[in-house]
Amino acid sequence: MGEKWVLMKTAQTPTNIAVIKYWGKRDETLILPVNDSISVTLDPAHLCTTTTVAVSPAFQQDRMWLNGKEMSLSGGRYQNCLREIRKRAREVEDKERGIKIEKKDWEKLHLHIASYNNFPTAAGLASSAAGFACLVYRTNGFGFDAVFALAKLMNVSEDESQLSAISRQGSGSACRSLFGGFVKWIMGKEDDGSDSLAVQLVDEKHWEDLFIIIAVVSSRQKETSSTSGMRESVETSSLLQHRAKEVVPKRTIQMEEAIQNRDFASFAKLACADSNQFHAVCLDTLPPIFYMNDTSHRQVLIYICWFLLGDVGEKNMYKTKEVLIEMVKSWLWDIVVLGSIPVKSRDMNLWRTTSQKSVIEVAYTFDAGPNAVLIARDRKAAAQLIQRLLFYFPPKSDTDLDSYLLGDKTILKDAGLEGLKDVEALSPPPENGSAQKYPGDVSDFICTRPGKGPILLSNDKLALLEPETGLPK
Amino acid sequence: MGEKWVLMKTAQTPTNIAVIKYWGKRDETLILPVNDSISVTLDPAHLCTTTTVAVSPAFQQDRMWLNGKEMSLSGGRYQNCLREIRKRAREVEDKERGIKIEKKDWEKLHLHIASYNNFPTAAGLASSAAGFACLVYRTNGFGFDAVFALAKLMNVSEDESQLSAISRQGSGSACRSLFGGFVKWIMGKEDDGSDSLAVQLVDEKHWEDLFIIIAVVSSRQKETSSTSGMRESVETSSLLQHRAKEVVPKRTIQMEEAIQNRDFASFAKLACADSNQFHAVCLDTLPPIFYMNDTSHRQVLIYICWFLLGDVGEKNMYKTKEVLIEMVKSWLWDIVVLGSIPVKSRDMNLWRTTSQKSVIEVAYTFDAGPNAVLIARDRKAAAQLIQRLLFYFPPKSDTDLDSYLLGDKTILKDAGLEGLKDVEALSPPPENGSAQKYPGDVSDFICTRPGKGPILLSNDKLALLEPETGLPK
Repeated sequence: MGEKWVLMKTAQTPTNIAVIKYWGKRDETLILPVNDSISVTLDPAHLCTTTTVAVSPAFQQDRMWLNGKEMSLSGGRYQNCLREIRKRAREVEDKERGIKIEKKDWEKLHLHIASYNNFPTAAGLASSAAGFACLVYRTNGFGFDAVFALAKLMNVSEDESQLSAISRQGSGSACRSLFGGFVKWIMGKEDDGSDSLAVQLVDEKHWEDLFIIIAVVSSRQKETSSTSGMRESVETSSLLQHRAKEVVPKRTIQMEEAIQNRDFASFAKLACADSNQFHAVCLDTLPPIFYMNDTSHRQVLIYICWFLLGDVGEKNMYKTKEVLIEMVKSWLWDIVVLGSIPVKSRDMNLWRTTSQKSVIEVAYTFDAGPNAVLIARDRKAAAQLIQRLLFYFPPKSDTDLDSYLLGDKTILKDAGLEGLKDVEALSPPPENGSAQKYPGDVSDFICTRPGKGPILLSNDKLALLEPETGLPK
Repeated sequence: MGEKWVLMKTAQTPTNIAVIKYWGKRDETLILPVNDSISVTLDPAHLCTTTTVAVSPAFQQDRMWLNGKEMSLSGGRYQNCLREIRKRAREVEDKERGIKIEKKDWEKLHLHIASYNNFPTAAGLASSAAGFACLVYRTNGFGFDAVFALAKLMNVSEDESQLSAISRQGSGSACRSLFGGFVKWIMGKEDDGSDSLAVQLVDEKHWEDLFIIIAVVSSRQKETSSTSGMRESVETSSLLQHRAKEVVPKRTIQMEEAIQNRDFASFAKLACADSNQFHAVCLDTLPPIFYMNDTSHRQVLIYICWFLLGDVGEKNMYKTKEVLIEMVKSWLWDIVVLGSIPVKSRDMNLWRTTSQKSVIEVAYTFDAGPNAVLIARDRKAAAQLIQRLLFYFPPKSDTDLDSYLLGDKTILKDAGLEGLKDVEALSPPPENGSAQKYPGDVSDFICTRPGKGPILLSNDKLALLEPETGLPK
């Protein structure tokens, strides 16, 4: 074979948000989790990673670039992934160009890998990009994107689940992104991790109504890396093992049912409860890990005020309402509307009458950072949600709406919001007549949907490496 | 007996701070907890409640005033306490005044009760008083102060532990305040609650070195009441039972040992861990309860940066340091001093060399609110702590130091701080050369010590009720 050719593949791979959380490894090297987790894959049109992998006899060593910056490939995680994927490489032939790579050649050939994260985020807002690092790309891991693209380049015959078991060794939770729709990462039982892999529960068409709005919280603080954070939790939290062994197994079954049945109320309750518990375990860690901040708390309280007040369990109706009303009265609201409700009285029917909603229409979940991920039941609920979010968290005066709400902007029309003037004119939500606003707490919102799994891009213009040199464009 | 006389007793009773937390009841009516708890009683010279109880044949009904405002006595809690204490009333005679009350008379006689909370807090700072409500007086309970004073008035023969079992039915955690020093509230096993009572572990002389500094966090938000909060946790948190059954029993034994041995390092680790876990359970509650806010988090991180970086367990030294350094780098600090440390490198000895401390000298604990309670090993540690606290959390410019640090002000001299100018001139702590300051985050600090239990005041001038009318002065 000639010495000058470069063979490339470019993939577009999505990100995912867990609704049953992964927190804690039982094996640090193989990245085997202490419990199953479930996630929804986000539409790559709004959030995705583009990855080009290239092979050439001219390459002197394996190299990788992330967002244009060369990264070291010396870490154990990269090496584990590369070894596993090389092991499975098969013969590849490009007859047109007269290139043929035998199975045994892959051992000697070096690779170039370039990844680029498509954050639809306002240019210049560094804080926003920082807030997103943990959401879109685990910088301390080797991406599943590279595993997927390399598998295609090397003509690997393994299916996506098998690839997820390899990709898991580069970056744990990202292995769920090898499918669209809802995905479960099975923890597995084997010591070698061979049965710890991702499976698709339903594809992205199964529950198309959902809208996902991410509130990127302005924050000077960087977070504890999830790798060290979860290690600390495993070592010091006395609650983590109980969660992993007793709580998550039942919750996973219930969540699968809720997803299969498109039962949004159950889905929302489980997702919120599991997010709460993940952050509870972080707090139970020594020293404690704080991912949620005051802005995150406010997001939760908006949600509680809007929905839960109208949908309390029958059994403990009074009790639940009492605490909710106290929370709402106390934290976020100035007690004008709510102050008229006789909290001390047991006649809670009055409140039921004043409540606008009796159905849960939004779920929240928080990953290892302060950003709220809000999942709305449907377009109508999403429009109502974005009205509330933009009311409470308007942009700073120097930001325009177009760079403040990113992703799927069609929702703005449903919400009757065409520009900043409409946002400024928003009335307080009916559940809260005297609401305080928090301009600047959020740097931007991203509206997206459940999305498809990774795909190969056939358009060579989208490749990140030069076809002649294999170096970044 | 005459119809005009009024017989009174006045008591001064302390407050307490739990170091092993009470969170969750197994019986709502009798107020029986799901686990033991341990507290330290605070010096009543700085924080206390004064309570006058009076009896007179002229009184038409039982009445109570709290901080000058009349409160309803119709709630079940008051009635339970009053019934229990009346049941134990014995003959009382005041020969000088010719008053004699037979045992049977108590059933017919009505009582007046007046309580006043001595908050040494800056006048006019309503937020501060609000922040203190949960710390000093459970407004939804019937105080142990009234139980104590009534027991003295009615010549009840039961000892303090027996009184604590009665007082528990008015307000749970306050029953620990019937003793000075360190106190354990034993959860008990009996259905009737007769063995759920407080016992003194050691008196206030046992560990005299300790200093306790309370940071009263400025906050517009009121908190979820602990009564409804813990009920919600019992009903919805899947971690609470595990904590109560598996974690706290062991931790209580270790904490008792640490207190007996004045082993500050163990004491601090257990207190911090238990505070963390209590707030973790709150977060695991549905809907979640947020007591700690960003200011609380910062208090914890100051502590971590100062002490834990120098005192990591031998076993997991590298791992613990890694996560700590990431936390410290990320959250609170601007990475000037810390930025020079090779975080990614495994050569952590560099950091050990730069670390100023290798002994834990402060513990933190947070009750059902954002206020930090910081317990310093001794006067020297307290002085260093107050230097740091006043550096990071200086008063607003319109506050003078005298109304900003309340309670035991002798610590200011040890810290070399005589006025606001000295506070402004404070150097950044050696562990953090470029620290950010948060003026206004804290409304005031209170410095206090472990203190004695309740006492009767013999000086009638301190009574809160008029000796002739039995009405508030």
